[in-house]
Amino acid sequence: MAVKGLGQLDQQYDGTSIRVGIIHARWNKVVIDALVNGAINRLKSLGVKEENIIIETVPGSYELPWGTKRFIDSQASKNAPLDVVIPIGVLIKGSTMHFEYISDSVTKALMSLQEKVGIPVIFGLLTCLTEQQAMARAGIDESKSMHNHGEDWGAAAVEMAIKFGPRAF
Amino acid sequence: MAVKGLGQLDQQYDGTSIRVGIIHARWNKVVIDALVNGAINRLKSLGVKEENIIIETVPGSYELPWGTKRFIDSQASKNAPLDVVIPIGVLIKGSTMHFEYISDSVTKALMSLQEKVGIPVIFGLLTCLTEQQAMARAGIDESKSMHNHGEDWGAAAVEMAIKFGPRAF
Amino acid sequence: MAVKGLGQLDQQYDGTSIRVGIIHARWNKVVIDALVNGAINRLKSLGVKEENIIIETVPGSYELPWGTKRFIDSQASKNAPLDVVIPIGVLIKGSTMHFEYISDSVTKALMSLQEKVGIPVIFGLLTCLTEQQAMARAGIDESKSMHNHGEDWGAAAVEMAIKFGPRAF
Amino acid sequence: MAVKGLGQLDQQYDGTSIRVGIIHARWNKVVIDALVNGAINRLKSLGVKEENIIIETVPGSYELPWGTKRFIDSQASKNAPLDVVIPIGVLIKGSTMHFEYISDSVTKALMSLQEKVGIPVIFGLLTCLTEQQAMARAGIDESKSMHNHGEDWGAAAVEMAIKFGPRAF
Amino acid sequence: MAVKGLGQLDQQYDGTSIRVGIIHARWNKVVIDALVNGAINRLKSLGVKEENIIIETVPGSYELPWGTKRFIDSQASKNAPLDVVIPIGVLIKGSTMHFEYISDSVTKALMSLQEKVGIPVIFGLLTCLTEQQAMARAGIDESKSMHNHGEDWGAAAVEMAIKFGPRAF
Repeated sequence: MAVKGLGQLDQQYDGTSIRVGIIHARWNKVVIDALVNGAINRLKSLGVKEENIIIETVPGSYELPWGTKRFIDSQASKNAPLDVVIPIGVLIKGSTMHFEYISDSVTKALMSLQEKVGIPVIFGLLTCLTEQQAMARAGIDESKSMHNHGEDWGAAAVEMAIKFGPRAF
Repeated sequence: MAVKGLGQLDQQYDGTSIRVGIIHARWNKVVIDALVNGAINRLKSLGVKEENIIIETVPGSYELPWGTKRFIDSQASKNAPLDVVIPIGVLIKGSTMHFEYISDSVTKALMSLQEKVGIPVIFGLLTCLTEQQAMARAGIDESKSMHNHGEDWGAAAVEMAIKFGPRAF
Repeated sequence: MAVKGLGQLDQQYDGTSIRVGIIHARWNKVVIDALVNGAINRLKSLGVKEENIIIETVPGSYELPWGTKRFIDSQASKNAPLDVVIPIGVLIKGSTMHFEYISDSVTKALMSLQEKVGIPVIFGLLTCLTEQQAMARAGIDESKSMHNHGEDWGAAAVEMAIKFGPRAF
Repeated sequence: MAVKGLGQLDQQYDGTSIRVGIIHARWNKVVIDALVNGAINRLKSLGVKEENIIIETVPGSYELPWGTKRFIDSQASKNAPLDVVIPIGVLIKGSTMHFEYISDSVTKALMSLQEKVGIPVIFGLLTCLTEQQAMARAGIDESKSMHNHGEDWGAAAVEMAIKFGPRAF
Repeated sequence: MAVKGLGQLDQQYDGTSIRVGIIHARWNKVVIDALVNGAINRLKSLGVKEENIIIETVPGSYELPWGTKRFIDSQASKNAPLDVVIPIGVLIKGSTMHFEYISDSVTKALMSLQEKVGIPVIFGLLTCLTEQQAMARAGIDESKSMHNHGEDWGAAAVEMAIKFGPRAF
């Protein structure tokens, strides 16, 4: 029995009216690019319009929480508020403890950001022990062993915006 | 001497007047379904009416805290406020550190959610190292080695709502 | 030289005018009961009146922080505010990671609860790797290898209430 | 090249006008006493007047954050506000996980206390794996292998009070 | 394929109008000095004026969050508000658990500081297991095995100030 399986969407969602922000770190660019593309493709397949997908970047993953906060503020200040945001970063274990402290603090800061900004924040952070793991989760390892996780984030963004976004009820 | 034992209810509770939300992730669906059913069955056995058990879902466990917050808000906006909520998710250790960071951040976010929403949040998150452990705690491993933990959550929900819910005093 | 030693009270305290709440989980009941009794005995030996020791329970340790919050609110709503509270729970390591996530989140939630409720919260949580360790710290293992830690909690409660409680200055 | 070295004061500080609180746990008293004395000696050597060093105690390290909060409040209520506080505790690893959960929660609670009380909180907590490590850091192991860390805390207190205390600017 | 690679700036930035604070601990001075110089050099190369780079210090890394908070307040009180701040510290694993608790609490406190002060806080904390690792990341080990990470922090500061600083929009 396959217990551990990909969650499927619970219904068909129509993303034509939602506005989605993607903000990504620029370290480990090959993996990041694949993940961002995966997210965009899934967003579009669920009806999100290209002009409603806004892309921004920060230097590294530690900058994601504050960058996401200000990215949301910035869009709102232009009268183009986001319904949901997907911060994307790829952390890979190195020889110091940098990986652990960054992964932990960024994960928690993104979680708690939601109540401050009032929109869903999708967790697009890979916390990998090897480069191979990161490539696999972006769907770009040689054997194509896994699907592109950016696709999951795109689907989650549409669902969360429609169910629980600022205009949901 | 059996030290480690299941806590029993301290008194008989009558759940006929309480309204319970269940919000569950959709990853690891087989286990999730069993846990949700276990919770529902126990709620009903303690008098909670079927129409007062509201079910909602989110894609994965990371979405539980914000989803729970908005699910509660949504029910309140319909003049049908919840007395207690049971977020349910099943996390299983994989090869990256995803399991650890999600488990930790979700556990703490659900804990701190209580003071923000003012109702008890029952901890329905399994943090398992293997699929086998998850199935056992849902009462669906082959040897039926453990009871369905969803039942505990249903009982805890009724007790916490009646003792410490928003209408308790 | 014995470095690691039990802290003694720094002065004699008179608990006759303070009101103490004890709220305990019901899992691992044998150990819990011994700890609760140890705390009560010490409270009484420091002058706390039996009618000023209020006992409440929650299903498990995860319910302690919210239960403690509402227990305090409930007593205040009856014009019988508590000066200090002792949440008591016994967590024992199992095969999943449940122990770690619960222990960590409950410890921090009880710590931060103090500033929200304005009274001292004594840390009555045992985080043990084995049942044997739990029994020893409740003073009920066969060899009576350790003293009942509930006694320390009772003493700490009286001291903290008198020095730093809501009526201390 | 000696990389890991004690930080020196960046300038001479004159502590004659500042008021310093020391609040210490009472477990592991031999080590605590040495650390408290080390801190006091350094404070005096930087000009802090004896009558401006206020000593208070709590039972154990878990009580430090709330005790420190209320100690500060108490001094302020007497029109004798503190400019800086040094909570001191000694935690030594035992057989349960008590050490880990206490160390972590106390460290973070003392850190976040600063923004609530508006004065610097110096970190006087030793988190040792053995008694030997604790004695060494208090300057009282047989071989006098290390200096008394209480001295560092005294120096840090004076610097932080003068640079960043409530009366600094 | 080189996955794990240094993130490059996404565009050319002009730092001539921004004001940058650097606040560093003084432990492990050789490494700290190299990192601070690396940051300053990169700031200047991106146009930041020397008179707009303000340097401050604290005793150790635990003092960084509160010191950073008050450093920002102090500059604002002089009508010379900072646009971004770079706290710099070097933590090296020792025999007790001091490294772990300090690293974790400082990382999280710096992260959450951003929403309190409203300016970006760049993460200039090295959390190394050996002195060798620290020297390598400051570009001062014998083999010059890595670049000076202070340079990354300088670049991140300019980008974050211009994109997401208090005067960005």
